[in-house]
Amino acid sequence: MKTIVIHAARDLRIEDGDTAPPGPGQVQIAMATGGICGSDLHYYNHGGFGAVRLREPMILGHEVAGHITELGAGVTGLKVGQLVAVSPSRPCNACKFCLEGSQNQCLNMRFYGSAMPFPHIQGAFRQVLVADASQCAVADGLTAGEAAMAEPLAVTLHATRRAGNLVGKSVLVTGCGPIGILCILAARRAGADRIVATDLSDFTLGMARQVGADETINMKDDPEGLARFTPDKGTFDVLYECSGAAPALSAAIMAMRPGGTILQLGLGGDMTLPMMAITSKELSLKGSFRFHSEFFTGVSLMQKGLIDVKPLITQTVPLDRAVEGFETASDRTRAIKVQISF
Amino acid sequence: MKTIVIHAARDLRIEDGDTAPPGPGQVQIAMATGGICGSDLHYYNHGGFGAVRLREPMILGHEVAGHITELGAGVTGLKVGQLVAVSPSRPCNACKFCLEGSQNQCLNMRFYGSAMPFPHIQGAFRQVLVADASQCAVADGLTAGEAAMAEPLAVTLHATRRAGNLVGKSVLVTGCGPIGILCILAARRAGADRIVATDLSDFTLGMARQVGADETINMKDDPEGLARFTPDKGTFDVLYECSGAAPALSAAIMAMRPGGTILQLGLGGDMTLPMMAITSKELSLKGSFRFHSEFFTGVSLMQKGLIDVKPLITQTVPLDRAVEGFETASDRTRAIKVQISF
Amino acid sequence: MKTIVIHAARDLRIEDGDTAPPGPGQVQIAMATGGICGSDLHYYNHGGFGAVRLREPMILGHEVAGHITELGAGVTGLKVGQLVAVSPSRPCNACKFCLEGSQNQCLNMRFYGSAMPFPHIQGAFRQVLVADASQCAVADGLTAGEAAMAEPLAVTLHATRRAGNLVGKSVLVTGCGPIGILCILAARRAGADRIVATDLSDFTLGMARQVGADETINMKDDPEGLARFTPDKGTFDVLYECSGAAPALSAAIMAMRPGGTILQLGLGGDMTLPMMAITSKELSLKGSFRFHSEFFTGVSLMQKGLIDVKPLITQTVPLDRAVEGFETASDRTRAIKVQISF
Amino acid sequence: MKTIVIHAARDLRIEDGDTAPPGPGQVQIAMATGGICGSDLHYYNHGGFGAVRLREPMILGHEVAGHITELGAGVTGLKVGQLVAVSPSRPCNACKFCLEGSQNQCLNMRFYGSAMPFPHIQGAFRQVLVADASQCAVADGLTAGEAAMAEPLAVTLHATRRAGNLVGKSVLVTGCGPIGILCILAARRAGADRIVATDLSDFTLGMARQVGADETINMKDDPEGLARFTPDKGTFDVLYECSGAAPALSAAIMAMRPGGTILQLGLGGDMTLPMMAITSKELSLKGSFRFHSEFFTGVSLMQKGLIDVKPLITQTVPLDRAVEGFETASDRTRAIKVQISF
Repeated sequence: MKTIVIHAARDLRIEDGDTAPPGPGQVQIAMATGGICGSDLHYYNHGGFGAVRLREPMILGHEVAGHITELGAGVTGLKVGQLVAVSPSRPCNACKFCLEGSQNQCLNMRFYGSAMPFPHIQGAFRQVLVADASQCAVADGLTAGEAAMAEPLAVTLHATRRAGNLVGKSVLVTGCGPIGILCILAARRAGADRIVATDLSDFTLGMARQVGADETINMKDDPEGLARFTPDKGTFDVLYECSGAAPALSAAIMAMRPGGTILQLGLGGDMTLPMMAITSKELSLKGSFRFHSEFFTGVSLMQKGLIDVKPLITQTVPLDRAVEGFETASDRTRAIKVQISF
Repeated sequence: MKTIVIHAARDLRIEDGDTAPPGPGQVQIAMATGGICGSDLHYYNHGGFGAVRLREPMILGHEVAGHITELGAGVTGLKVGQLVAVSPSRPCNACKFCLEGSQNQCLNMRFYGSAMPFPHIQGAFRQVLVADASQCAVADGLTAGEAAMAEPLAVTLHATRRAGNLVGKSVLVTGCGPIGILCILAARRAGADRIVATDLSDFTLGMARQVGADETINMKDDPEGLARFTPDKGTFDVLYECSGAAPALSAAIMAMRPGGTILQLGLGGDMTLPMMAITSKELSLKGSFRFHSEFFTGVSLMQKGLIDVKPLITQTVPLDRAVEGFETASDRTRAIKVQISF
Repeated sequence: MKTIVIHAARDLRIEDGDTAPPGPGQVQIAMATGGICGSDLHYYNHGGFGAVRLREPMILGHEVAGHITELGAGVTGLKVGQLVAVSPSRPCNACKFCLEGSQNQCLNMRFYGSAMPFPHIQGAFRQVLVADASQCAVADGLTAGEAAMAEPLAVTLHATRRAGNLVGKSVLVTGCGPIGILCILAARRAGADRIVATDLSDFTLGMARQVGADETINMKDDPEGLARFTPDKGTFDVLYECSGAAPALSAAIMAMRPGGTILQLGLGGDMTLPMMAITSKELSLKGSFRFHSEFFTGVSLMQKGLIDVKPLITQTVPLDRAVEGFETASDRTRAIKVQISF
Repeated sequence: MKTIVIHAARDLRIEDGDTAPPGPGQVQIAMATGGICGSDLHYYNHGGFGAVRLREPMILGHEVAGHITELGAGVTGLKVGQLVAVSPSRPCNACKFCLEGSQNQCLNMRFYGSAMPFPHIQGAFRQVLVADASQCAVADGLTAGEAAMAEPLAVTLHATRRAGNLVGKSVLVTGCGPIGILCILAARRAGADRIVATDLSDFTLGMARQVGADETINMKDDPEGLARFTPDKGTFDVLYECSGAAPALSAAIMAMRPGGTILQLGLGGDMTLPMMAITSKELSLKGSFRFHSEFFTGVSLMQKGLIDVKPLITQTVPLDRAVEGFETASDRTRAIKVQISF
C-alpha cells in the first residue's frame, strides 16, 4: 500500500505503508480520491504554519473518499463496495467540550494529517484506510471526487451555521481559494441575496462568478474596489474571511454594515485590525474552525443536487504524480481544488 | 376605475371607484395582477375570521403588482412604465414597535384590505392605486403574476428568518395551501435538507412535491403517517404550521425533535395542544405574523431566479370573473394561488 | 437504613432499605435533608400525573443533600464529611442528545424518583445514598436545607438561560409554588426590572413579594388583574409559566408584549390556548424541562450569597413524620417548600 | 449661565453661555451634576482621539443630571422640580438604522459633546440645559450624582445585553476605569458567577473588589497573572474589554474558553491580535458602542437598589474647580469617577 508522506518542506515522498484489518466498529476502505487542502500545502511548502511545525514524517491528507472493502465486527448501515466520504475528525466524545456538543473543540481530537500534537496524527492519503464506521458518510450517487469535497464543504457549512440566518443577506467573501468558493456556494444555499467576492487572482474570481458570485473585485488591480460599499457606514451583513490576510480583513471591515457578522475562516498569524470600526459599528467577529455534524449535512446536500462542487475540481492527478499535484495546487492562477486519484 | 368590494359573506361586487393623483412621495399604479389570499377568502366565505368581522363594505386585496403611470413630487428611483410589486404593509414608522424595528407590530398599521380597525383599511384590488414610493419594489424581469406573489412569499421568508439557521435541518410543513407551498420553497432556499409536507388534499401535496418536498403525507388517508417520525423523541428540527388546525399541529408536535422550533403561520381560533410534549421536549413555538423588509428580499430572490413561484399560480381570471376566481381559490383540490388580471 | 416509599396514591410508607459501598467513581452519602417536590406530591396525592403512573413501589425524592461518609476508588476533589448537594440527573453521556450538550433530553436518563420508565428509577429519600462523584456539588458554607434546594433552583436557572438576556426586562410569573418563587429569585438575579407574580393564594403571593416581586395579583380575588397590562398589545417581555393551568397561561398571553418569550415550566395536561394572540403578537412559547450544568451554577450562586433560598423553606419535619410533611406540602396556604430531615 | 468649554488640548475654560426657553416637547433643566468621562479626558489631554479631533471650541460633557425648571408645550409625565437623568443620545428616529431599532448607529446622531461631525455637537456641562422630554429619565429617589451615572452605566448594560445570558458565567474584565467597574456591577446584576478583573492600578483594582470582583490581577506586577486560566483551552465565557489596549486584549484572548464572547468597549486605535486563537477557539469578538433604551433601564435598576454606583463617585468638585476635576480624573491611582457640581 502506498502513502503520501511529508518529511520536511518540499520533501514529499510516496512510501509503502502497512494495512490492518478493521477492528470492531471499523471499516476498511480502498481509497479512491483525496483532495489537497491548504494545510497540506503549508506542510509541503513551509513545513508547517505558525507554531504548528513538522517534527517527524507524517502522512498528509484529510479530504478523502473511497470504497468499503471490509466491515469490522458490529458494523451496521454500511456495506462492502459502497462509496463513502470519510470524516477526518475524530473527537473523543467524552471531554467537556464534546459533552457540550462542541466536538470540533475536543481536547483529545485526532484529526487526520495534523502536526499539532506530537506524535503527529497521521493522515489519510493512503491506498488503504481503516476508519471508524461513524466517520463514514454514505455517498451513493456522488463521484468519488465530489465525496472527497465533503470535508472542505463542511468547513464552510459550519461557518454558515455560525452566521445565523442568511436569507436575503448581503455577503462578502474575501479570498477565493477552495474555501472561499465553497463559502459562496454555502451562502447561496443558505439564502443569501447579493454576494461579492474579492481575491488577487482573476482565475479564482472567474470561478467565484461561475458558482454564483454577483460581483467580483480583483484587489490587486482595484485596491479601492470596496470603497463604493462604505457609505452610510457600510453595506455587507456578513463577511466570510477566507484569505487569512490582514489587509483583506481590514478593507472588508470598512465595508461592513453596523451589526454585521464576520466569519474568520482564514488562518493567518497575528493581524492588525481597525478596532475602532469594529467597536463603533458593533461588528461581531467570529472564529470558525473545522466542523462536526456538517460533514454529513454536506454529503446529503450534494446528493440532493442542492450544492454542486464539481466545478471546483480543476485537476485530478494519479498517485504517482502527487508532487506535481501539490505544485499545481499551490498555483492560484490555475487551480482551485486539485485531487489525487488513488 | 373598477374595484372588488366585499359587502358581506358571499356578497362580492365589482364597483366603480375614484382615482386620485399621486401626492408627494407617492406613485400612481395601473394595477396588473392581484392574488387572492386566504384572508380574502375568509371575508368572502365567512365575512371575517375570529373577532375580525366586516362592518362596512371593503375593497379586498393585498397581493398586487402593477405598472407605474405617474410619479408624485420628490419620488426618485422609480420611473413611469416600471412593473412594481406593492407592499400592502404601511406601518407608521413612529410608534414604539416601529422604532424597535418591529414594523409588522406597528400600533397604527394600515394593512390593505383589513377589517381589523374601523373604519376598515381599504384594499388594493382596484384598477388604479396610489401608493407610497416606499411600498414599491421594482420587479424588472418578473411577470406581473410573479411580482404579485411577493406578499405571500414575504410572509414565509419572515417565518424563515424567525426559524434561525436552516442549513441541513429537517423540516415539516403542515398545510399545503399557498403559504405552505411557499414555506417549502423558502425552507429549501434557506438550506433545509429533508422536507416533509402534510395536507388533506392530493392536489396540494402534488404541488408540494413539485416544488421540492422530499415526502408528502395525506393525513386523511394516512392519519398515523407521522408516527414513523416519533421514535427517539422525534425527528423534525423545524415545523412550519400553515394549517391553523389543532389536529395538524398536535400530531406534528409529537414528531418534533427535542429543542425543535415551530413557526405558527396558520391563523385559527383557540387550539388545544399537548403541552406536556412541548414542555418536556423543550420545543419553541413561535408565532410568525406578516413581514417587513422581507417583501423586498422576496422580489430580489425571485429576480435572481433563486425562488421560482410560477408553478403556484394555478389559475388567472380576468377582473369581470373575479367571483369565479374566489370560488376556484376556495377549492383546495384544484387551486393553489388564483390571481385576478386587472 | 430507612427509605420513603410510595406504593399508591396516599400510601406512603417508611421502609427499611439496603445500603451498599461506593463503587469506583462513587461516594456514599449520609442523607441530611430532602425537599418534597411537586412531582413527589403528584405521586402521593394521585399516584402519578398524565401518562406517568406508578406501577410498582418507588422510593421518592430528588431534592437532596447530605454528608459524604465514604469515597469509592478513584474519587478526587471530594472528602469525607463534606456537605454535598446531589444532582438527581444521571444522563448517559453517550446518546445523541448528550453528545449535543442536551443532557436533560438524554434518551437513557435515570432521574431519581421517576416512574417514567419501568422498572421505575428509585429516588433519593433514603438515609444512605451511593451516588456518582459527578453528581455531587460541594456545598461548603450552605446549610443542608439550602443545599437541598439546588435541584429546584437549577430548574429555574435552566429556564432563565432559555429566556435569553433579562437585563431590564419586564417579567410575569404565573403560579407561586416553589418553582414560581425560585423563578422570581432567578429572574431578579439575571437582571430583570419589573416583576409581577400571580397565584390564587395570598400566602404564596406574600412570599413572592418577600423575595422580590414588585407586584402580586391574586387571580381568585381579581380575575381581571392582568387587564391593566394589556394596552398597546401588552407589557411583559418574559413569562415564567409555573402553574400548569391553561387559564393562567391564557390570561398571561394577553398581557405579553409582541415578541415576548414564555417559559413553560408548569406541567399540566393538554391546554387550550389563544393561538391567534400567540401568532399575531409573535410570541415565543418555549418548554423548559429539568436542567444540567445549572445544578452546579445554583450551588455556586447560593454560596456567594447571590441567591438566597432560605425564606422558601417554610417547614422541616423529621423522617418519621414524612407523611405529615407531604400533607403540609400539599397545602398552598401555608407551605412553599417542606423538607424532611434524615 | 456658565459652561465648560474645551478649546484645545489642556485649554479648558469656564465661559458664559446663552440660555433659551424650552420649545414644544422640551424641558429646561438646572444642571446639578456632570460626570467626567474618558472621552472628555481625551479632548482635555490630547484634543481628541484617533481621527476625532477638535476643530472649534466645544462644550464638553454628556453624563448629566439636573432639576426641571420649566416645561415646554405638550410635555406630559414630567414636572417642575423633578430630578432627571438626561440622555446625551439624540438619534433622528428616521434613518434606516433607527427604523431597525439600532438608534445607537443613527446616521444623524447628535450626541452631546462630540467632535465627530463638524460643526461639533455641543455638550451638556452647562448650568442650564434645554433637552427633549424624551431624553429625560425621572430619577426620584436617587442623588444627582447617581443620576449622572446613568450614562456610563447604560454603556455597560448595552454591552451586557450583547453578551447574551450571563447566568452562572465566568467573566473577565480588563481595564478598571469607570466603565470596567460598571461592567463588574452589570455582569453581577446579570447573573455572572466568577468575576476576575485586571488593571495596572492597585487603586482601581481595590474598587473592583469592593463592587464585587472575586479576584483581581495587577498586570504590571504580575504580567503572567492570566496564565493560570489558560489550561484546557481557557476559562472565561465572557470578556469585557475596557482598556482599549492591545496587550490586555491579547492576554485575555488566551484565557478565553472556546466559544466565548468578547465585548469590546475600550476605544483604542488599531490593535494587533492573535487571530489564530480567535479562529481556532471560535471566539466571538463583538464591538459595543453607546446604548439606547439601556439609559432608562439603568435609572430604574438604580432606583430599585439593584445596582449601586455610589462607591464609584470618588470625587465631586464645584464648577469653578472644573480644571482640577479633570486633572484628578486623569489620575487612575486615586480616581474612578469625578463629578462636577453645577
